[in-house]
Amino acid sequence: MGETHGVTEPSGRGEGTVNTYVVRRIGVVRSPLRDLDYAPRQADEDAPEAELVFDQEVATALEGIEAGAVIEVLTWLHLSSRDTLQTRPRGDVTRSLTGVFATRSPDRPNPIGLHTVTVLEAGPGTLRVGGLEAIDGTPVVDVKIALGTPDGR
Amino acid sequence: MGETHGVTEPSGRGEGTVNTYVVRRIGVVRSPLRDLDYAPRQADEDAPEAELVFDQEVATALEGIEAGAVIEVLTWLHLSSRDTLQTRPRGDVTRSLTGVFATRSPDRPNPIGLHTVTVLEAGPGTLRVGGLEAIDGTPVVDVKIALGTPDGR
Repeated sequence: MGETHGVTEPSGRGEGTVNTYVVRRIGVVRSPLRDLDYAPRQADEDAPEAELVFDQEVATALEGIEAGAVIEVLTWLHLSSRDTLQTRPRGDVTRSLTGVFATRSPDRPNPIGLHTVTVLEAGPGTLRVGGLEAIDGTPVVDVKIALGTPDGR
Repeated sequence: MGETHGVTEPSGRGEGTVNTYVVRRIGVVRSPLRDLDYAPRQADEDAPEAELVFDQEVATALEGIEAGAVIEVLTWLHLSSRDTLQTRPRGDVTRSLTGVFATRSPDRPNPIGLHTVTVLEAGPGTLRVGGLEAIDGTPVVDVKIALGTPDGR
Protein backbone atom coordinates (compact mmCIF):
# COMPACT_ATOMS: atom_id res chain seq x y z
CA MET A 1 0.00 0.00 0.00
CA GLY A 2 2.24 3.00 -0.86
CA GLU A 3 2.18 6.35 0.88
CA THR A 4 -0.24 9.08 -0.12
CA HIS A 5 -0.95 7.94 -3.69
CA GLY A 6 -1.70 11.56 -4.61
CA VAL A 7 -1.48 12.42 -8.28
CA THR A 8 -0.20 15.87 -9.11
CA GLU A 9 -2.16 17.67 -11.78
CA PRO A 10 -0.77 20.70 -13.58
CA SER A 11 -4.18 22.38 -13.34
CA GLY A 12 -4.25 22.25 -9.54
CA ARG A 13 -6.89 24.37 -7.87
CA GLY A 14 -7.56 25.47 -4.33
CA GLU A 15 -5.81 23.52 -1.61
CA GLY A 16 -2.70 22.71 -3.66
CA THR A 17 -2.02 20.64 -6.70
CA VAL A 18 -3.23 17.22 -5.53
CA ASN A 19 -6.83 16.78 -6.62
CA THR A 20 -7.03 13.07 -7.27
CA TYR A 21 -6.35 10.03 -5.10
CA VAL A 22 -5.94 6.36 -5.92
CA VAL A 23 -8.30 3.89 -4.24
CA ARG A 24 -7.23 0.24 -4.21
CA ARG A 25 -9.59 -2.70 -4.32
CA ILE A 26 -9.25 -4.57 -0.99
CA GLY A 27 -11.80 -7.29 -1.71
CA VAL A 28 -14.85 -8.24 -3.72
CA VAL A 29 -18.58 -8.90 -3.24
CA ARG A 30 -19.75 -12.46 -3.90
CA SER A 31 -23.50 -12.41 -4.32
CA PRO A 32 -26.30 -14.27 -6.09
CA LEU A 33 -27.17 -10.87 -7.63
CA ARG A 34 -25.62 -10.99 -11.09
CA ASP A 35 -27.54 -8.36 -12.96
CA LEU A 36 -27.97 -4.68 -12.17
CA ASP A 37 -31.49 -4.73 -13.66
CA TYR A 38 -32.68 -7.10 -10.97
CA ALA A 39 -30.74 -5.67 -8.03
CA PRO A 40 -32.85 -4.02 -5.31
CA ARG A 41 -32.25 -0.29 -4.88
CA GLN A 42 -31.56 -0.42 -1.16
CA ALA A 43 -30.47 -3.12 1.24
CA ASP A 44 -33.77 -3.27 3.11
CA GLU A 45 -35.66 -3.98 -0.10
CA ASP A 46 -35.13 -7.74 -0.28
CA ALA A 47 -31.38 -7.67 -0.80
CA PRO A 48 -29.81 -11.12 -0.37
CA GLU A 49 -26.99 -12.33 1.85
CA ALA A 50 -23.56 -11.85 0.33
CA GLU A 51 -19.98 -12.78 1.07
CA LEU A 52 -17.18 -10.23 1.19
CA VAL A 53 -13.90 -11.86 0.18
CA PHE A 54 -10.85 -9.81 1.13
CA ASP A 55 -7.39 -9.79 -0.42
CA GLN A 56 -4.88 -11.61 1.73
CA GLU A 57 -2.77 -8.47 2.25
CA VAL A 58 -5.53 -6.81 4.31
CA ALA A 59 -6.97 -9.85 6.12
CA THR A 60 -5.49 -8.85 9.51
CA ALA A 61 -7.41 -5.58 9.32
CA LEU A 62 -10.61 -7.62 9.86
CA GLU A 63 -9.59 -8.80 13.34
CA GLY A 64 -12.19 -7.79 15.89
CA ILE A 65 -15.20 -7.99 13.57
CA GLU A 66 -17.55 -10.67 14.86
CA ALA A 67 -20.96 -12.07 13.97
CA GLY A 68 -23.63 -9.58 15.00
CA ALA A 69 -21.49 -6.51 14.33
CA VAL A 70 -23.04 -3.76 12.22
CA ILE A 71 -20.56 -2.47 9.67
CA GLU A 72 -20.37 0.12 6.92
CA VAL A 73 -19.12 -1.42 3.69
CA LEU A 74 -17.76 0.97 1.06
CA THR A 75 -17.70 -0.35 -2.50
CA TRP A 76 -16.63 0.97 -5.88
CA LEU A 77 -19.73 0.97 -8.08
CA HIS A 78 -17.77 0.04 -11.17
CA LEU A 79 -20.72 0.09 -13.61
CA SER A 80 -21.82 3.64 -12.76
CA SER A 81 -21.75 6.77 -14.87
CA ARG A 82 -19.39 9.38 -13.41
CA ASP A 83 -20.70 12.18 -15.64
CA THR A 84 -24.22 12.22 -14.21
CA LEU A 85 -24.86 15.26 -11.97
CA GLN A 86 -28.66 15.17 -11.88
CA THR A 87 -31.11 12.30 -11.94
CA ARG A 88 -34.73 11.38 -11.30
CA PRO A 89 -34.84 9.56 -7.95
CA ARG A 90 -35.37 5.81 -8.36
CA GLY A 91 -35.66 6.23 -12.14
CA ASP A 92 -39.20 7.56 -11.69
CA VAL A 93 -39.97 9.80 -14.70
CA THR A 94 -42.75 11.55 -12.78
CA ARG A 95 -40.22 12.92 -10.28
CA SER A 96 -38.23 16.05 -11.10
CA LEU A 97 -34.50 16.18 -11.76
CA THR A 98 -32.51 16.21 -8.52
CA GLY A 99 -28.81 16.62 -7.88
CA VAL A 100 -27.15 13.23 -7.41
CA PHE A 101 -25.75 14.34 -4.03
CA ALA A 102 -29.37 14.64 -2.82
CA THR A 103 -29.93 10.97 -3.75
CA ARG A 104 -28.36 7.51 -3.31
CA SER A 105 -27.98 7.04 -7.08
CA PRO A 106 -24.94 4.95 -8.04
CA ASP A 107 -24.29 7.47 -10.82
CA ARG A 108 -22.14 10.27 -9.33
CA PRO A 109 -18.68 11.81 -9.83
CA ASN A 110 -17.04 9.34 -7.40
CA PRO A 111 -19.16 6.17 -7.47
CA ILE A 112 -18.51 4.99 -3.91
CA GLY A 113 -21.29 2.74 -2.59
CA LEU A 114 -22.20 2.89 1.11
CA HIS A 115 -23.92 -0.15 2.63
CA THR A 116 -24.83 -0.64 6.29
CA VAL A 117 -25.02 -4.39 6.89
CA THR A 118 -24.94 -6.90 9.74
CA VAL A 119 -22.18 -9.49 9.90
CA LEU A 120 -23.64 -13.02 9.95
CA GLU A 121 -20.34 -14.90 10.01
CA ALA A 122 -16.69 -13.85 10.14
CA GLY A 123 -14.14 -16.26 8.63
CA PRO A 124 -10.47 -15.84 7.77
CA GLY A 125 -10.41 -13.08 5.16
CA THR A 126 -14.17 -13.26 4.65
CA LEU A 127 -17.36 -11.78 6.06
CA ARG A 128 -20.84 -13.13 5.36
CA VAL A 129 -23.30 -10.25 5.60
CA GLY A 130 -27.05 -9.81 5.42
CA GLY A 131 -28.93 -7.66 2.92
CA LEU A 132 -26.39 -6.28 0.48
CA GLU A 133 -27.73 -4.77 -2.77
CA ALA A 134 -24.37 -4.69 -4.62
CA ILE A 135 -24.00 -7.17 -7.47
CA ASP A 136 -21.50 -10.02 -7.67
CA GLY A 137 -18.03 -8.77 -8.55
CA THR A 138 -18.42 -5.29 -7.05
CA PRO A 139 -15.05 -4.18 -5.62
CA VAL A 140 -14.88 -3.49 -1.87
CA VAL A 141 -12.73 -0.49 -0.89
CA ASP A 142 -13.29 -0.04 2.88
CA VAL A 143 -15.04 -1.43 5.96
CA LYS A 144 -15.77 0.48 9.18
CA ILE A 145 -17.60 -0.49 12.31
CA ALA A 146 -20.90 1.41 12.43
CA LEU A 147 -20.99 4.12 15.08
CA GLY A 148 -22.91 3.11 18.17
CA THR A 149 -23.33 5.22 21.26
CA PRO A 150 -20.29 7.10 22.61
CA ASP A 151 -20.05 4.63 25.55
CA GLY A 152 -19.43 1.68 23.27
CA ARG A 153 -16.43 3.13 21.43
CA MET B 1 -15.03 13.83 -15.12
CA GLY B 2 -13.72 11.11 -17.51
CA GLU B 3 -15.22 7.69 -17.92
CA THR B 4 -14.28 4.85 -15.62
CA HIS B 5 -10.87 6.14 -14.48
CA GLY B 6 -9.77 2.55 -13.97
CA VAL B 7 -6.03 1.95 -13.96
CA THR B 8 -4.85 -1.33 -15.42
CA GLU B 9 -2.18 -3.08 -13.41
CA PRO B 10 -0.06 -5.87 -14.88
CA SER B 11 -0.39 -7.83 -11.61
CA GLY B 12 -4.18 -8.01 -11.86
CA ARG B 13 -5.84 -10.52 -9.52
CA GLY B 14 -9.34 -11.92 -9.23
CA GLU B 15 -12.04 -9.99 -11.04
CA GLY B 16 -9.85 -8.84 -13.91
CA THR B 17 -6.95 -6.48 -14.21
CA VAL B 18 -8.47 -3.29 -12.80
CA ASN B 19 -7.66 -3.06 -9.11
CA THR B 20 -7.31 0.67 -8.58
CA TYR B 21 -9.67 3.58 -9.20
CA VAL B 22 -9.14 7.32 -9.27
CA VAL B 23 -11.16 9.45 -6.88
CA ARG B 24 -11.42 13.16 -7.66
CA ARG B 25 -11.71 15.91 -5.08
CA ILE B 26 -15.13 17.55 -5.54
CA GLY B 27 -14.84 20.09 -2.75
CA VAL B 28 -13.14 20.95 0.52
CA VAL B 29 -13.95 21.26 4.23
CA ARG B 30 -13.68 24.76 5.72
CA SER B 31 -13.54 24.43 9.49
CA PRO B 32 -12.14 26.18 12.56
CA LEU B 33 -10.38 22.84 13.28
CA ARG B 34 -6.85 23.37 12.02
CA ASP B 35 -4.91 20.71 13.88
CA LEU B 36 -5.43 16.96 13.98
CA ASP B 37 -4.21 16.85 17.60
CA TYR B 38 -7.18 18.90 18.75
CA ALA B 39 -9.83 17.41 16.47
CA PRO B 40 -12.55 15.39 18.22
CA ARG B 41 -12.63 11.70 17.32
CA GLN B 42 -16.28 11.61 16.33
CA ALA B 43 -18.82 14.18 15.25
CA ASP B 44 -20.92 13.91 18.40
CA GLU B 45 -17.93 14.71 20.59
CA ASP B 46 -18.02 18.51 20.37
CA ALA B 47 -17.23 18.77 16.66
CA PRO B 48 -17.82 22.31 15.34
CA GLU B 49 -19.90 23.58 12.46
CA ALA B 50 -18.10 23.52 9.14
CA GLU B 51 -18.64 24.68 5.59
CA LEU B 52 -18.35 22.37 2.59
CA VAL B 53 -17.25 24.33 -0.47
CA PHE B 54 -17.78 22.46 -3.72
CA ASP B 55 -16.00 22.82 -7.04
CA GLN B 56 -18.10 24.69 -9.58
CA GLU B 57 -18.22 21.69 -11.94
CA VAL B 58 -20.33 19.67 -9.50
CA ALA B 59 -22.49 22.44 -7.98
CA THR B 60 -25.65 21.32 -9.80
CA ALA B 61 -25.34 17.92 -8.12
CA LEU B 62 -26.28 19.65 -4.82
CA GLU B 63 -29.76 20.63 -6.03
CA GLY B 64 -32.40 19.22 -3.73
CA ILE B 65 -30.33 19.36 -0.53
CA GLU B 66 -32.01 21.73 1.90
CA ALA B 67 -31.48 22.90 5.47
CA GLY B 68 -32.50 20.14 7.85
CA ALA B 69 -31.42 17.32 5.55
CA VAL B 70 -29.22 14.61 7.06
CA ILE B 71 -26.39 13.73 4.69
CA GLU B 72 -23.43 11.38 4.54
CA VAL B 73 -20.26 13.25 3.67
CA LEU B 74 -17.36 11.19 2.34
CA THR B 75 -13.93 12.77 2.67
CA TRP B 76 -10.38 11.81 1.78
CA LEU B 77 -8.42 11.72 5.03
CA HIS B 78 -5.27 13.03 3.39
CA LEU B 79 -3.07 12.92 6.51
CA SER B 80 -3.71 9.24 7.27
CA SER B 81 -1.34 6.29 7.13
CA ARG B 82 -2.40 3.78 4.47
CA ASP B 83 -0.06 1.08 5.74
CA THR B 84 -1.74 0.62 9.13
CA LEU B 85 -3.77 -2.61 9.34
CA GLN B 86 -4.14 -2.84 13.13
CA THR B 87 -4.49 -0.19 15.79
CA ARG B 88 -5.47 0.37 19.41
CA PRO B 89 -8.96 1.92 19.39
CA ARG B 90 -8.89 5.62 20.25
CA GLY B 91 -5.13 5.46 20.80
CA ASP B 92 -5.73 3.80 24.19
CA VAL B 93 -2.60 1.74 25.02
CA THR B 94 -4.60 -0.37 27.50
CA ARG B 95 -6.75 -1.72 24.65
CA SER B 96 -5.53 -4.60 22.52
CA LEU B 97 -4.61 -4.34 18.86
CA THR B 98 -7.66 -4.45 16.62
CA GLY B 99 -8.01 -4.60 12.84
CA VAL B 100 -8.64 -1.13 11.42
CA PHE B 101 -11.80 -2.36 9.67
CA ALA B 102 -13.25 -3.04 13.17
CA THR B 103 -12.66 0.64 14.07
CA ARG B 104 -13.25 4.15 12.76
CA SER B 105 -9.52 4.93 12.69
CA PRO B 106 -8.52 7.33 9.90
CA ASP B 107 -5.50 5.08 9.29
CA ARG B 108 -6.59 2.37 6.82
CA PRO B 109 -5.73 1.16 3.30
CA ASN B 110 -8.21 3.55 1.67
CA PRO B 111 -8.56 6.54 4.03
CA ILE B 112 -12.14 7.51 3.18
CA GLY B 113 -13.84 9.42 5.99
CA LEU B 114 -17.56 8.92 6.60
CA HIS B 115 -19.45 11.66 8.42
CA THR B 116 -23.21 11.81 9.07
CA VAL B 117 -24.13 15.47 9.50
CA THR B 118 -27.15 17.76 9.38
CA VAL B 119 -27.33 20.56 6.82
CA LEU B 120 -27.77 23.94 8.53
CA GLU B 121 -27.74 26.07 5.39
CA ALA B 122 -27.51 25.33 1.67
CA GLY B 123 -26.01 28.04 -0.55
CA PRO B 124 -24.86 27.98 -4.17
CA GLY B 125 -22.05 25.44 -4.23
CA THR B 126 -21.81 25.34 -0.44
CA LEU B 127 -23.35 23.52 2.50
CA ARG B 128 -23.03 24.63 6.11
CA VAL B 129 -23.21 21.54 8.34
CA GLY B 130 -23.26 20.83 12.05
CA GLY B 131 -20.75 18.70 13.95
CA LEU B 132 -18.00 17.73 11.50
CA GLU B 133 -14.76 16.37 12.98
CA ALA B 134 -12.66 16.72 9.78
CA ILE B 135 -10.00 19.42 9.83
CA ASP B 136 -9.85 22.47 7.58
CA GLY B 137 -8.62 21.57 4.10
CA THR B 138 -9.85 17.97 4.11
CA PRO B 139 -10.93 17.03 0.57
CA VAL B 140 -14.59 16.08 0.04
CA VAL B 141 -15.17 13.20 -2.41
CA ASP B 142 -18.90 12.43 -2.18
CA VAL B 143 -22.21 13.43 -0.58
CA LYS B 144 -25.31 11.23 -0.25
CA ILE B 145 -28.64 11.82 1.39
CA ALA B 146 -28.85 9.65 4.52
CA LEU B 147 -31.27 6.75 4.19
CA GLY B 148 -34.55 7.37 5.95
CA THR B 149 -37.47 4.99 5.99
CA PRO B 150 -38.41 3.25 2.72
CA ASP B 151 -41.52 5.47 2.42
CA GLY B 152 -39.48 8.66 2.16
CA ARG B 153 -37.29 7.61 -0.76
